[in-house]
Amino acid sequence: MSSEFDTNLPSIRKVQSTIKDQKQVEMKLTTGDVLAGKLLWQDPSCICLRDENNQQILIWRGAIAYIKPKG
Amino acid sequence: MSSEFDTNLPSIRKVQSTIKDQKQVEMKLTTGDVLAGKLLWQDPSCICLRDENNQQILIWRGAIAYIKPKG
Amino acid sequence: MSSEFDTNLPSIRKVQSTIKDQKQVEMKLTTGDVLAGKLLWQDPSCICLRDENNQQILIWRGAIAYIKPKG
Amino acid sequence: MSSEFDTNLPSIRKVQSTIKDQKQVEMKLTTGDVLAGKLLWQDPSCICLRDENNQQILIWRGAIAYIKPKG
Amino acid sequence: MSSEFDTNLPSIRKVQSTIKDQKQVEMKLTTGDVLAGKLLWQDPSCICLRDENNQQILIWRGAIAYIKPKG
Amino acid sequence: MSSEFDTNLPSIRKVQSTIKDQKQVEMKLTTGDVLAGKLLWQDPSCICLRDENNQQILIWRGAIAYIKPKG
Repeated sequence: MSSEFDTNLPSIRKVQSTIKDQKQVEMKLTTGDVLAGKLLWQDPSCICLRDENNQQILIWRGAIAYIKPKG
Repeated sequence: MSSEFDTNLPSIRKVQSTIKDQKQVEMKLTTGDVLAGKLLWQDPSCICLRDENNQQILIWRGAIAYIKPKG
Repeated sequence: MSSEFDTNLPSIRKVQSTIKDQKQVEMKLTTGDVLAGKLLWQDPSCICLRDENNQQILIWRGAIAYIKPKG
Repeated sequence: MSSEFDTNLPSIRKVQSTIKDQKQVEMKLTTGDVLAGKLLWQDPSCICLRDENNQQILIWRGAIAYIKPKG
Repeated sequence: MSSEFDTNLPSIRKVQSTIKDQKQVEMKLTTGDVLAGKLLWQDPSCICLRDENNQQILIWRGAIAYIKPKG
Repeated sequence: MSSEFDTNLPSIRKVQSTIKDQKQVEMKLTTGDVLAGKLLWQDPSCICLRDENNQQILIWRGAIAYIKPKG
């Protein structure tokens, strides 16, 4: 897992602004799970989300289908 | 995630023209979801789509099965 | 997505001849979808198929299970 | 798709001997499909199988779960 | 499988602290399986978990959807 | 498929010792299949398992979810 992570990519920046603005999001996974909460941080392999039970969930990027604003 | 992105690739150009022409598309995901709307932008990792509820959905390329014109 | 695309590979050549000969094919996707039609072009990321409704479908290679002649 | 293909790998050699010996095999795909027939050739992206209807099926390596002898 | 493994990545460090602190976790796999237990070690390809039957399970990173604290 | 294969990785060594010790294992695949038997060999692309019908099954690493001791 290279740590090559181009923070200029629009998709990285969009996730970063979602983190900064503490927006509520829904994340659909390839398993069919839908996780709701706030994004805490991202790196080349994973995104960390705090869910509505205040639990930190470490999500593999390879399992993410999409992220959208909640509601 | 390298930012290596060959904008000469026919598939990148086809998505780019779909963005430019603001065509309505259907995007089938590997989850079975079908997202409908207009493509806003693309980068090496993701494609951003504005759906029919005017929400911006950040979609991982690895979860895309196909894109086709709507209707 | 590198544009590294070895056109000498037997699989690339087989798709290319299918395109040239305008053969009718069936394409099974990892979603379970079966798309039928003619292949129009290919690049390192995608294959474009014209389906039986004359629609151009941009298919991600990562979502392709197999291609076989139709019928 | 690099054409890097180490023909010394045991797995490549095993497929190659299956091709040479024209053994009947079963190939389980990640879609759940089970394809039966004889392997014709392989390259870094795909394996080509002639099924029991004498059709040549071009199978993406990424969609293969396993190959085993038929019966 | 390169052994490139950036131990400075937040996601690697988070798994490492989970290992060190012997926290009980739930791991959701892309198969839908949920494995519960303690993480023993990680490397670029896999994570090893001791489950509640005291069995060591070698899990492929490509099959992990997410990890979260148990309960 | 590069033949880059770091035999010092804990996960490679764990599979190697399972092979050497001829341990009975269960292998869960992303298809949901559970294969039981003994591991014969591994390479960067595949793992070969002898199942309970004494058949050699060539399994793609990309389709493996986890391996655990049988029973």
